[in-house]
Amino acid sequence: MSQAIFFHAGCPVCVSAEQQFAGSLDPARFQVEVVHLGENASRVGEAEALGVQSVPAMVIDGQVFHINFGAPLSALK
Amino acid sequence: MSQAIFFHAGCPVCVSAEQQFAGSLDPARFQVEVVHLGENASRVGEAEALGVQSVPAMVIDGQVFHINFGAPLSALK
Repeated sequence: MSQAIFFHAGCPVCVSAEQQFAGSLDPARFQVEVVHLGENASRVGEAEALGVQSVPAMVIDGQVFHINFGAPLSALK
Repeated sequence: MSQAIFFHAGCPVCVSAEQQFAGSLDPARFQVEVVHLGENASRVGEAEALGVQSVPAMVIDGQVFHINFGAPLSALK
């Protein structure tokens, strides 16, 4: 089982991406964790360390994919 | 079965996204078509009409998700 983390901040672009994207991964292969950085500011550092520059972003097996553009990570600090 | 189209242009960013992303969707729910716009220039207009502005991009049920940034669509015309 691979680990996928979807970081978002509740913005409209984020919600759209979450509903359409995070829920589309193959449940047989991926365990998807959804992290709202606005509500979990303590995890902003973790996202940054993984290479996340903006939200929404999906990290699959350590590789970062920025999906559209909602907000820069710096706005969440 | 939902339709998903992954548009790319063979760039390194595209290939990475294709391998990690296009192949991660739930095969029970999505039929994924991969379109190389460099080799199928005739479909650039279709991508544009769907709202694709850059590649790689994934269109799921008509909604466009730009994933990272490889090249602008204008560079493929």
